Amino acid sequence: MGRVKRVFQQIDPPARLLMGPGPINADPRVLRAMSAQLVGQYDPAMTAYMDETQALYREVFQTANEQTVLVDGTSRAGIEAALVSLIEPGDRVLVPVFGRFGHLLREIAERCGAEVHVIEVPWGQVFPLETITAAIERVKPKLLAVVHGDTSTTVAQPLEGLGEVCAQHGVLFYTDVTASISGNAFDTDALGLDAVTAGLQKCLGGPSGSAPATFSARAVEAIRSRASVEAGIRTEGDVTSSRRIASNYFDLAMIFDYWGPQRLNHHTEATTMLYGARECARLVVEEGLDQTVARHALHGSAMLAGVQGLGLEVFGDLEHKMNNVVAVVIPDGVDGDAVRGAMLTDFGIEIGTSFGPLHGKVWRIGTMGYNARRDTVLTTLSALEAVLRRAGAPVTTGGGVGAAYDVYADADRAAASSPVETRADAGTIAPEAASTDGTAGGAA
Amino acid sequence: MGRVKRVFQQIDPPARLLMGPGPINADPRVLRAMSAQLVGQYDPAMTAYMDETQALYREVFQTANEQTVLVDGTSRAGIEAALVSLIEPGDRVLVPVFGRFGHLLREIAERCGAEVHVIEVPWGQVFPLETITAAIERVKPKLLAVVHGDTSTTVAQPLEGLGEVCAQHGVLFYTDVTASISGNAFDTDALGLDAVTAGLQKCLGGPSGSAPATFSARAVEAIRSRASVEAGIRTEGDVTSSRRIASNYFDLAMIFDYWGPQRLNHHTEATTMLYGARECARLVVEEGLDQTVARHALHGSAMLAGVQGLGLEVFGDLEHKMNNVVAVVIPDGVDGDAVRGAMLTDFGIEIGTSFGPLHGKVWRIGTMGYNARRDTVLTTLSALEAVLRRAGAPVTTGGGVGAAYDVYADADRAAASSPVETRADAGTIAPEAASTDGTAGGAA
Repeated sequence: MGRVKRVFQQIDPPARLLMGPGPINADPRVLRAMSAQLVGQYDPAMTAYMDETQALYREVFQTANEQTVLVDGTSRAGIEAALVSLIEPGDRVLVPVFGRFGHLLREIAERCGAEVHVIEVPWGQVFPLETITAAIERVKPKLLAVVHGDTSTTVAQPLEGLGEVCAQHGVLFYTDVTASISGNAFDTDALGLDAVTAGLQKCLGGPSGSAPATFSARAVEAIRSRASVEAGIRTEGDVTSSRRIASNYFDLAMIFDYWGPQRLNHHTEATTMLYGARECARLVVEEGLDQTVARHALHGSAMLAGVQGLGLEVFGDLEHKMNNVVAVVIPDGVDGDAVRGAMLTDFGIEIGTSFGPLHGKVWRIGTMGYNARRDTVLTTLSALEAVLRRAGAPVTTGGGVGAAYDVYADADRAAASSPVETRADAGTIAPEAASTDGTAGGAA
Repeated sequence: MGRVKRVFQQIDPPARLLMGPGPINADPRVLRAMSAQLVGQYDPAMTAYMDETQALYREVFQTANEQTVLVDGTSRAGIEAALVSLIEPGDRVLVPVFGRFGHLLREIAERCGAEVHVIEVPWGQVFPLETITAAIERVKPKLLAVVHGDTSTTVAQPLEGLGEVCAQHGVLFYTDVTASISGNAFDTDALGLDAVTAGLQKCLGGPSGSAPATFSARAVEAIRSRASVEAGIRTEGDVTSSRRIASNYFDLAMIFDYWGPQRLNHHTEATTMLYGARECARLVVEEGLDQTVARHALHGSAMLAGVQGLGLEVFGDLEHKMNNVVAVVIPDGVDGDAVRGAMLTDFGIEIGTSFGPLHGKVWRIGTMGYNARRDTVLTTLSALEAVLRRAGAPVTTGGGVGAAYDVYADADRAAASSPVETRADAGTIAPEAASTDGTAGGAA
């Protein structure tokens, strides 16, 4: 065979500050949670963790949806589970595309056999409500599938008003919030959403590999009407729909039965990822969702002001920019990849490249999750100034850090007159030792 | 909304010894590897870990296959990726079913739109080679999909000879080795397999959530002929097949391009699971695959002798029993779930229940991965004797531990005359500090 048995060294990654569009550094608390030993799949401790994870994500998603679960895979596993479970071949699906992940929704919907109708705006822009409304009225889709925040362009599509339009036309309303969740204001139920999927590796501060998702009663009804019980565990009386979902792994009806009181065996839950997903949500709930969003707004503003203060241009509609990522135009004559390489090699800081029409034109710099902090913003701006200067680019000396400092000073002044909670001194949440009864805090 | 913001305690699972059919306790080394901080998706450190993971799993699978990758999901994600990427609607697929997971292969193949032909034997038995051969000649399938070891019945289907038959008839040959890999002799290339999928949570000693998989050149060709590049990252000249794979997430052509030198973005790799999967394989390669299998054979024999020594009957064809799990017939008049409950509550030991026709009839006891050890076997047998006696079942006092001790004594005697390597004193592998050059050991 010519195979050589090679033994590699233990995992020991270099220290990196991940300031790209995600993944970012996992919160150390998440990694600690993930280092806990396993328990059995149906151990009372495990099923309790599953129930708690559902409750925590109801808070993160701002929903009362019973069916709030984890899909075991990366964020696109959540997307595919939602789409393949909701879409039947031939269904009309409307996908407003304003970046890479809109194309992904389109492509997955196509693979589900949908008749996909696409509307597009140039990257960096979003749709006015009336454009999507007009398309709904024209296409009469079964499903509207739209990305909330698209890291490829840094903007978030406003979803306000779409829920009413969808309800009026009997359209199921789905969004992916992988890039935006807990870093930007988002309320599943207030927006009238039927299906929402996410991932851990952005503002939630965890590793990729688990996809939290939530489904309205209307979505659950559509999914359950296609239910099917696996042959190996089927008992008499179980029904299999002729409109069976095309995937077993992503069959949400089965996943609901696994997470629900039936505990009907489907996959073997990825316990370590569940530990991590639970801790991600626990961090947000402890800090308070509004405070988490406010923290992302603050550090995102500081980063934006900082790159502008360096004299750099930013890309995209700033009015709709997500709090947690900014696209910085690579100055003329500067080798974008060389700058990224120097940031990584010399400062241990990762900033992001770009896809599609923006490839080679912008860097993407994130301030999210555990890395939405003052020290990370100032460190990144300081390093960027140094690297750009060395690359021969014109930069405003001290302009990046200075502008960010100004944003923080303003925030500190505002906080002094009207205290804003931060993670370090979150007031509503009792310390860990005090929450041993499993409940704490007031109504959300 | 009536939602109440609840804060739950940190992850702190009870101490359990998981002696069921999996998941089992993760090797502490795997959990430590998984606690490492993340690096960026295309960080040189990350892509090096990906390459190393591929090399390590080539050794675990005993293959020279270039396309040896992880699918980001539980073991059934690996199964579905293999089947949906290989099967086109209308293809004939032959599935020999001898337990629950054969039914799963059938059901996934059906959802892929295959014309599925099933042959069955009663649970606990396996197929003679000539039965499968005759079915291949009759059905003329494109794909033979057969489970290797099925934990639902504890037996493993012998695969020897099937590769030749498949090659002769132009049939793609796929097996799932989730339950058997590294606990039982298995050689992908010698068996002539085209596709093999696995999971971490059995003999590999990791948590569920990553599915190692390997594909022959012939399988890769079949998959690549259906390749398609995602719209959001497509460039001119990229081709999209009209026979596009029905899933984006499980499109192996895309997954190969992500793992290959192109590094074409697909999902965001589940870094923490990759760290874990890599460490699982590193453990096996350090111990030596043959030694890992021998360890499972030893402790599996001791457990089998032990339950028989207690006076209990075992289920299934012992000639084909996997090393790593035994099905124990629940004695008449004994409440199987009450015994499992007492084992868990009073001794912290989990043993398994059963599915389908065996539900309520057998317990399944595993000896796998990190838990294939002398102390776990003796502790489990000792606890089982105590619990059964208290439940009023007739048991041979000391018969379980005694019989297991005899197996170990025989092994110790054999080792004294012809030394067998164990993990504690593995001879061929240099200690960690000595393998800093990333290579050690000789030819496999």
